[in-house]
Amino acid sequence: MASQSPVKMSADMPVPETMKAWVLGDPDELRLTEKPVPMPGLAEILVRIDAVAICATDLEIIHYGTPALIKGGPPFNRNFTPGHEYMGTVAALGPGVDEFEIGERVTVEIHAGCGQCKRCRQGMYTACLNYGLNYGDVDKGHRANGFTTDGGFAEYAVNNINTVIKVPDTMSDEEATLVVTAGTSMYGLTELGGLVAGESVVVTGPGPIGLLAVAVAKALGASPVILTGTRDARLEIGRKLGADHVINVRDTDGVEAVKRIVGERGADYVVECAGTEVAINDAIHMTNRGGKICLAAFPHDPATVDLPHVVKNNMYLYGIRGEGRSATHRAMAFMAEKRFDASLIHTHTFALDDLPEALRYARERVEDAIKVVVKARGVGEQLQVAE
Amino acid sequence: MASQSPVKMSADMPVPETMKAWVLGDPDELRLTEKPVPMPGLAEILVRIDAVAICATDLEIIHYGTPALIKGGPPFNRNFTPGHEYMGTVAALGPGVDEFEIGERVTVEIHAGCGQCKRCRQGMYTACLNYGLNYGDVDKGHRANGFTTDGGFAEYAVNNINTVIKVPDTMSDEEATLVVTAGTSMYGLTELGGLVAGESVVVTGPGPIGLLAVAVAKALGASPVILTGTRDARLEIGRKLGADHVINVRDTDGVEAVKRIVGERGADYVVECAGTEVAINDAIHMTNRGGKICLAAFPHDPATVDLPHVVKNNMYLYGIRGEGRSATHRAMAFMAEKRFDASLIHTHTFALDDLPEALRYARERVEDAIKVVVKARGVGEQLQVAE
Amino acid sequence: MASQSPVKMSADMPVPETMKAWVLGDPDELRLTEKPVPMPGLAEILVRIDAVAICATDLEIIHYGTPALIKGGPPFNRNFTPGHEYMGTVAALGPGVDEFEIGERVTVEIHAGCGQCKRCRQGMYTACLNYGLNYGDVDKGHRANGFTTDGGFAEYAVNNINTVIKVPDTMSDEEATLVVTAGTSMYGLTELGGLVAGESVVVTGPGPIGLLAVAVAKALGASPVILTGTRDARLEIGRKLGADHVINVRDTDGVEAVKRIVGERGADYVVECAGTEVAINDAIHMTNRGGKICLAAFPHDPATVDLPHVVKNNMYLYGIRGEGRSATHRAMAFMAEKRFDASLIHTHTFALDDLPEALRYARERVEDAIKVVVKARGVGEQLQVAE
Amino acid sequence: MASQSPVKMSADMPVPETMKAWVLGDPDELRLTEKPVPMPGLAEILVRIDAVAICATDLEIIHYGTPALIKGGPPFNRNFTPGHEYMGTVAALGPGVDEFEIGERVTVEIHAGCGQCKRCRQGMYTACLNYGLNYGDVDKGHRANGFTTDGGFAEYAVNNINTVIKVPDTMSDEEATLVVTAGTSMYGLTELGGLVAGESVVVTGPGPIGLLAVAVAKALGASPVILTGTRDARLEIGRKLGADHVINVRDTDGVEAVKRIVGERGADYVVECAGTEVAINDAIHMTNRGGKICLAAFPHDPATVDLPHVVKNNMYLYGIRGEGRSATHRAMAFMAEKRFDASLIHTHTFALDDLPEALRYARERVEDAIKVVVKARGVGEQLQVAE
Repeated sequence: MASQSPVKMSADMPVPETMKAWVLGDPDELRLTEKPVPMPGLAEILVRIDAVAICATDLEIIHYGTPALIKGGPPFNRNFTPGHEYMGTVAALGPGVDEFEIGERVTVEIHAGCGQCKRCRQGMYTACLNYGLNYGDVDKGHRANGFTTDGGFAEYAVNNINTVIKVPDTMSDEEATLVVTAGTSMYGLTELGGLVAGESVVVTGPGPIGLLAVAVAKALGASPVILTGTRDARLEIGRKLGADHVINVRDTDGVEAVKRIVGERGADYVVECAGTEVAINDAIHMTNRGGKICLAAFPHDPATVDLPHVVKNNMYLYGIRGEGRSATHRAMAFMAEKRFDASLIHTHTFALDDLPEALRYARERVEDAIKVVVKARGVGEQLQVAE
Repeated sequence: MASQSPVKMSADMPVPETMKAWVLGDPDELRLTEKPVPMPGLAEILVRIDAVAICATDLEIIHYGTPALIKGGPPFNRNFTPGHEYMGTVAALGPGVDEFEIGERVTVEIHAGCGQCKRCRQGMYTACLNYGLNYGDVDKGHRANGFTTDGGFAEYAVNNINTVIKVPDTMSDEEATLVVTAGTSMYGLTELGGLVAGESVVVTGPGPIGLLAVAVAKALGASPVILTGTRDARLEIGRKLGADHVINVRDTDGVEAVKRIVGERGADYVVECAGTEVAINDAIHMTNRGGKICLAAFPHDPATVDLPHVVKNNMYLYGIRGEGRSATHRAMAFMAEKRFDASLIHTHTFALDDLPEALRYARERVEDAIKVVVKARGVGEQLQVAE
Repeated sequence: MASQSPVKMSADMPVPETMKAWVLGDPDELRLTEKPVPMPGLAEILVRIDAVAICATDLEIIHYGTPALIKGGPPFNRNFTPGHEYMGTVAALGPGVDEFEIGERVTVEIHAGCGQCKRCRQGMYTACLNYGLNYGDVDKGHRANGFTTDGGFAEYAVNNINTVIKVPDTMSDEEATLVVTAGTSMYGLTELGGLVAGESVVVTGPGPIGLLAVAVAKALGASPVILTGTRDARLEIGRKLGADHVINVRDTDGVEAVKRIVGERGADYVVECAGTEVAINDAIHMTNRGGKICLAAFPHDPATVDLPHVVKNNMYLYGIRGEGRSATHRAMAFMAEKRFDASLIHTHTFALDDLPEALRYARERVEDAIKVVVKARGVGEQLQVAE
Repeated sequence: MASQSPVKMSADMPVPETMKAWVLGDPDELRLTEKPVPMPGLAEILVRIDAVAICATDLEIIHYGTPALIKGGPPFNRNFTPGHEYMGTVAALGPGVDEFEIGERVTVEIHAGCGQCKRCRQGMYTACLNYGLNYGDVDKGHRANGFTTDGGFAEYAVNNINTVIKVPDTMSDEEATLVVTAGTSMYGLTELGGLVAGESVVVTGPGPIGLLAVAVAKALGASPVILTGTRDARLEIGRKLGADHVINVRDTDGVEAVKRIVGERGADYVVECAGTEVAINDAIHMTNRGGKICLAAFPHDPATVDLPHVVKNNMYLYGIRGEGRSATHRAMAFMAEKRFDASLIHTHTFALDDLPEALRYARERVEDAIKVVVKARGVGEQLQVAE
């Protein structure tokens, strides 16, 4: 076999030896530090990070750590960089990589499966059986940047080419960071069956995934698309993203309200993005016989669920963890065509140096923050409010 | 369009005008009465019933009624005949039926979908959206004999040809009544994905469906097949039906025991046939990432379920109601080839006139009864114990 | 079981006893005659026909007859009414039908499966094993109006409710007749796998199905969508319907031109709508490894096909006959949302009485005719040219 | 990330520096030479080869070369070792590999996809878009040992762990070499839909893949299983492997004979293993509406095919190249359980040094040779005839 060529760089885009990177100290503590810029290996590229969106899971990881990392000890004080919804510019190519060019704008998805396990061989790389096995003695090749390997709150990151998606010129950096959120919504709908056009879809919970689930369902031809939630401002954004009906479940019974729209038998698909016990049971009760429910929220605790109803009615429940089956590529296809305006959920932009403040905006929903984006360059010291 | 020919009968097999039939009186009360023999319509046949197996659901219906029937009022004192696991001999053919011949031995599955709704058009007839809509003013064509239309604790029943399966000469009447149970097990495995050979399958709960799930999984090439339960005698039957391992969860932790066999990551598929909260959570915890769980038991009450684990691990939960997607035909294919001996779960036989006593055996598990069969003919007044 | 209510009509929409209907005389001969208005049976409605589009298959049937009808003798001089792409107004409801209301505007798909055979039970009603078995002694319930049962070149037709789709107020009669064409295109893409967004799709042949395949693929997020053909005017319409690239294969090699756009490995999906030997082989050679090809044209003759290439490259070929798996409903969902303007392929309108002239326009492509529509009412004696 | 441990070996199983290997000289010329023993890399193991079966494709490669290799020039005189159906003993583990232990008996499948391309991400690694891209400057990681990378007519080979299957103690070396053949048959049936039990399957062509397709179809519960061919001795072996019916198409029309067995509508599935134009068209004409045909033979030339019949009847044609979707594991599951006796197709054994003579037996079907196996050890100089 031929020897592999070494890492490829370009004089037009010099790569420094070290970079700024936020790392986890103790729980809830982030420190800005200087790290060596990592080098891409086989089937990998180096991304110069231009923008990162903050996800609720980032807040969890900063507070609790991630279960996967605990295998090799908790992520605290181990120089771990979180952040997984980033985009940037290709800065170097690993040996033999010719799928990308230096200087191209790209965005990323989170999961690169090990490629060896049964699930990866089935194409289910987000359910990789070697999830997190890349610390300590054993590296099975799995990568989940920002979860189990270094992520995007830094100036550079290495990505498996499986996880990289080209960004069209017409798309802003900020919008490009939303592809993984839209891809998660798309994956939820994909798992629900793929034949969505003309079917009724309810999305419960107008968080980022829920709002983009509305947009993606509508783009796929779902009809009607119904969004439920408790905050009118969020529901209004859902309407702009394509919801035919919005229901504020503070004021009314969600199950009854859905059935008034789609009929007594219930909806064909429900994408559950709220994660509460009430929402999960409502989802079950508003779904029709043989219908499908995607559990797209990470609930914290076990929930008491009406499984008798699930069984009697031949229902399917799918748990999803992030953006599988190349759904980010499908989401990008719609976003590149401007089928929906994902940037409606982007509310604030901060400089990378101001990450702690950006995290506070996201955590406390300051000024109704939905998606807060951090930019490594092109942002002054001042806070920028989107739109 | 041509006019349809009338009902076809044969002199060799005269059909009387009336028949003996058990009907529901008050809850838990069955009365033996005389009813007109029903006549088959379009795409229907008349079956002379030769044997009926008792299912746990029969006991429920006799005690609680069925939700579907309640739409037109409760089934009590309405002349309703329960019983759905029956087999017999074709006694008359509806207009135009040429798929069967008078005198052929047949067994039945329960569900004939309406054929008009979205689910039926998808091939999901057990999730028919017109389930139970065949009383009162509206008959959408749905049939679930013994549930929503008259069943098998009688001398004759009418069946849609969709629900009829030919019985080979080499199969006893008693074994033929077990096809719907095996078909339910097969459907559970079908919904789990179809590519079962070489995958690990755990069956939790050694009731009739669980035991035949073991047999069907083994026939499909699953490896290993593991059965968990609390009664050693039942587990022993599971072993005879093909379980590579049996685990008595009275003595040991089921999740740990399964993982000792299949490895820390867990099993590929779990068919949950116990219906308890503990069993459901065990099922979730013994399944690997991306794995699939079939909920095949009818739990009575909502259960507190570890949904966080389901979501984080990209799991799929399928509720099934009986025997969909022509799984009875597939089950029969294996039974006809003697790939497993379904009759191992048949323990007792009674005469039709002794139905109350047969029901008591089934309800109270007298003499470790598993499947109790009632025969309309060829049985003396005496109780017969199988094997 | 309850007795069924009789056919329901409305005083607002009186139904006459007889109607005008075109019937087949000798091959290529159509006669305008007077027929009794048919009455809807169980699960059927009566449609007052308002508009009918002419399909190439109509021309075939008028010339050759249909193979299915030949079972009961050829369709000529048997009072058979062709025409299958019609829409209209609900005029009467069969016993028990409550899914529709008299006065509603509806359009139709062709196939109502028998509901009894293995294929229908799988949801594959366009592959019904009892196709055409509704003449002579046996009526298995299959209906393909305009193919095996009376069609739409008349004032009224009876339709199984499975085949009826509601038309939104905002859609013209003419556009509504195009749903079966769009549904056929949608079915082709459905069979190709469902996960179309972001994948490259080539459509070969800009006939009505090809043009709407472009529109549907684009609506589903395919990218890029490429159309090949030999007539620039048609290709231009394809561009308006969403083709990112059009290729005139008179001027250039289609396979090479496609690869210049999508890369050397070829396209993910090809919808072959030309039906020629060259086009079929081009489709095979422009598809990538593991790619899928839908054969959506009815070729007349066997073709010499590069099967070695199909096998070596793990390709899938799907033949489709019309609009399966409720794809018309999905097509309507997109059309109702104005995702594409199907009416771009509608070029001419004639009165029902002028059917022979309308057929001549369709057959000879007079004035570049694509879809010619015949209207029973609201059209003067004069020819109307669309747009 | 942790540094990877180096290659692991065992003193119990010393690995020499060089090995005997047959290599391609000019077309049809094989030379026995001495090569360095290759070393396993990441996710790879070294296999000491114990037995290799000869496949018809080997004969093709030795005669014509392989298209994939031609990218970097023809395989002749480039030190290329063919042979792909081998089994052996694990002799060394690549860095970090803990899925296998040194000393374990294993058999292999051919294809390790690149893991990066769209098809690999879908789980379709046999349709890897980087097929053969592992010579010259670019190595995308794809491996097809014996096709594009060094194969098994040697003492050692390196295999990606994706391609390795453990062999039970109860299975002979010779039988274990047949797993890739059985896996190819299994893959064909998998692609046909997975719900095979109770469906009719015809296998056309009693070569090794056809014969094991009979065995696998029967194990999966297909009923009836029909085998067609022209050689009675082969058909007889098919009967022993589970064919319910065999048809010698020299004596009778295959299509008519199949329809006499399964009925006029035709069979549900056909696995076409003959590769001739007649056989392919027969396959099409004996399949029922909506039925599926797997093209499992490598035809040499384009064939004139009745595509009109395919389209009118909504048929599906699947080309398969070898053993995808982990079908070898499923095949092994059945073989390990002795559901069929694959060794019935093994007819001759030779020593590795006698490879040319072994190839002659395979090519000329000397003594009705079906599968000829070559053994590196445990075989005298003499020819051994199996059974």
